[in-house]
Amino acid sequence: MITENILPHLCSMNAEIITIGDELLIGQVIDTNSSWMAQRLNEAGVRVVRKQTVGDIPAQMTGVIKEALVRSDIVLLTGGLGPTKDDKTRDVLCAIYECGLVVDEQTLARMEAYFSARGRVLSDTNRDQANVPDKCTTIPNHHGTAPGMWFDENGRILVSMPGVPYEMKAMMDDFVIPRLRNRFALPEVVHHILTTMGIPESHLSDLLSKWESELPTRYTLAYLPSPGLVRLRLSCYDAGTNDSSAMAHLMDDLASLVQPYLFSRGDSAPEQAIGEMLRIRNQTISVAESCTGGYISHLITTVPGSSIWYMGSSVSYDNEVKSTFLGVDADIIRSQGAVSEDVARAMAEGIRSKLKTTWSIATTGIAGPGGGSPEKPVGTVWIALSGPFGTQAKMFRFGDNRLRNIQMTAFMAFKMLRDAITESGSV
Amino acid sequence: MITENILPHLCSMNAEIITIGDELLIGQVIDTNSSWMAQRLNEAGVRVVRKQTVGDIPAQMTGVIKEALVRSDIVLLTGGLGPTKDDKTRDVLCAIYECGLVVDEQTLARMEAYFSARGRVLSDTNRDQANVPDKCTTIPNHHGTAPGMWFDENGRILVSMPGVPYEMKAMMDDFVIPRLRNRFALPEVVHHILTTMGIPESHLSDLLSKWESELPTRYTLAYLPSPGLVRLRLSCYDAGTNDSSAMAHLMDDLASLVQPYLFSRGDSAPEQAIGEMLRIRNQTISVAESCTGGYISHLITTVPGSSIWYMGSSVSYDNEVKSTFLGVDADIIRSQGAVSEDVARAMAEGIRSKLKTTWSIATTGIAGPGGGSPEKPVGTVWIALSGPFGTQAKMFRFGDNRLRNIQMTAFMAFKMLRDAITESGSV
Repeated sequence: MITENILPHLCSMNAEIITIGDELLIGQVIDTNSSWMAQRLNEAGVRVVRKQTVGDIPAQMTGVIKEALVRSDIVLLTGGLGPTKDDKTRDVLCAIYECGLVVDEQTLARMEAYFSARGRVLSDTNRDQANVPDKCTTIPNHHGTAPGMWFDENGRILVSMPGVPYEMKAMMDDFVIPRLRNRFALPEVVHHILTTMGIPESHLSDLLSKWESELPTRYTLAYLPSPGLVRLRLSCYDAGTNDSSAMAHLMDDLASLVQPYLFSRGDSAPEQAIGEMLRIRNQTISVAESCTGGYISHLITTVPGSSIWYMGSSVSYDNEVKSTFLGVDADIIRSQGAVSEDVARAMAEGIRSKLKTTWSIATTGIAGPGGGSPEKPVGTVWIALSGPFGTQAKMFRFGDNRLRNIQMTAFMAFKMLRDAITESGSV
Repeated sequence: MITENILPHLCSMNAEIITIGDELLIGQVIDTNSSWMAQRLNEAGVRVVRKQTVGDIPAQMTGVIKEALVRSDIVLLTGGLGPTKDDKTRDVLCAIYECGLVVDEQTLARMEAYFSARGRVLSDTNRDQANVPDKCTTIPNHHGTAPGMWFDENGRILVSMPGVPYEMKAMMDDFVIPRLRNRFALPEVVHHILTTMGIPESHLSDLLSKWESELPTRYTLAYLPSPGLVRLRLSCYDAGTNDSSAMAHLMDDLASLVQPYLFSRGDSAPEQAIGEMLRIRNQTISVAESCTGGYISHLITTVPGSSIWYMGSSVSYDNEVKSTFLGVDADIIRSQGAVSEDVARAMAEGIRSKLKTTWSIATTGIAGPGGGSPEKPVGTVWIALSGPFGTQAKMFRFGDNRLRNIQMTAFMAFKMLRDAITESGSV
């Protein structure tokens, strides 16, 4: 909705992204590279004007690349660098830049080391990947075999990188972005992010429109929505020496404007932010899940090192399991129903006392599509939080999408926990 | 790697996809529309030759659309149809087709009904969305306000659809694909899919290369890899009346060739396939998770109706919890370590007896990045399966990527369960 592209006057360099591969054209693979690259370029103050995907057809690749080099200062390619005959990017680039191949000794040495460390012999096919166009600077690939290639001719930069996301990302962060900054003397861009929860993007933009309109022109505010949360990114282009304290003040203003919806200052995932809060306080957590079916535990355990602050969970889909694992009184379930405040509270208290944690979260609700009733329609969820200061429970009514209900419940549970930790002031 | 595009001789129509929106160029939103559309076109026997993304800039949009109409028979656009001033697709199309706007009465009536059902008044901004270029056929939008537009001039088709995925998808399935089939007398294409697990795409292609090379020319085999599994899609183009039994035979051959790696015939998600196997047998399952941290339970509970065959889980991250919840003997954990066959078995047996289920799965391992040792490096995982015929356990060594280890463990657990159910012959 609000999609602040970088203000044109702040951003003099244009870029295009070209992704190469038949697999992208038959829809076998979703291209996540180009949006990641676009975001990195944007953050560095480069305006992305076009993205294209073409198949492994040399004539087509050549046409698309040449056109892009006419239009834009920077052209980033991914794909077509593998060792098979389908991979044609290098030959196409040799033709475009009218150059031959030379052995890149550093790449060859790295490949030999890589293979010998794995007890494998370097094949001729792999060895050929160390041959690079003689007009390019190679970009080391620390996560695979094919090196990246950096061309700089007629004031235009072309960079060719592998399509494997983690190979490409490392090259972008370690080599391409720093070098572009340097090559084009890109303006210093500073970004600060905060994460909000429980407010839709459109309401947030209403809330902030006046403040946003009064920002000095070198600042832009971007709304970065993802399911269940909206990140706010304040960017300062061409930041001067005094801007760091000005930026800090603006972020304080922003945080206070969105206070009821503030989840964290920064852009870490909710489960990471929660983990960090618990870790520095030497606190622990356990979870009693029903409608979220393990999703909260899964999010928590995606965080490396979560075993320090996370003890364990029960997933009690069946009502009897709520009694077996958590000691929830079967009479309460019978009289109030499994989706009720009393059951949510009993679940939270049950797991907390059983696993002896500082905090516990419990969820019980109707994720859908079945199981709704007039009094408790699909999307009705009770979340309980138990901690050093007692137990609280809240009811939510989400929508009719099962996966979204599961996700919203998890995020709202994290928000309740975050608010309780903050309010308890137990730093 | 192997990325069979449709054989050119089977496929005479070319298509291009153009997605429009600044939000796609700054990397705020990942474009999932275009790969979905590419897949649908490909399945219908249309070859996608290019995908492009441009911003909301009329001059640029016009250039890109005109070029595409010169190159290709079919051009599909998404985006830029919203009610705000950023949305310029309709005006651009009026200019390209040299036509004016007319009120589409059906669209207006649908919008009035939509708003009045929600107790809202139709604003002038929304009302304007019912104005469409007078040279197009409108495509009803059953999930939103902006109609789609179908242009047919000079033998070229251009279709403009909203960028909202579910609005676009409904238009594609209900209107665009059937109409394209009809308009271009597209060949009848039949696809059958099976899902494999535990074998990389490259090994699978070695295993099948001879069989694949002997396929009649109207058949193609596509490898559709996603993390942890590879789907095989056999397609028959220009299928005749006798092809349904021939196809069935080929699928039987394929299934027997990949037998040790076969997960399911069809392309449903592993957890759905497992659920269906349990449901029709009136069997139930419980899960004792350690290294997977709730992910197996989460996958299971994404399946609507899983409460029929899934009872519950424990997530015992902390060792003490393995004893508290599952009665695992603390001496075994001390002597064998938490990541060991004996603990995996005890966890599986503990949860199965506690929740009284037909089957149970247990996982314990080192997801990483920390916690590895020379004897038990990161990626070491024990999976145990307990069922009517006893308990079995297997050790796996996955890699050093935490999320991937979690996912691979979940899928391998499903594979063990699937094989045990199949072998038990308990249909």
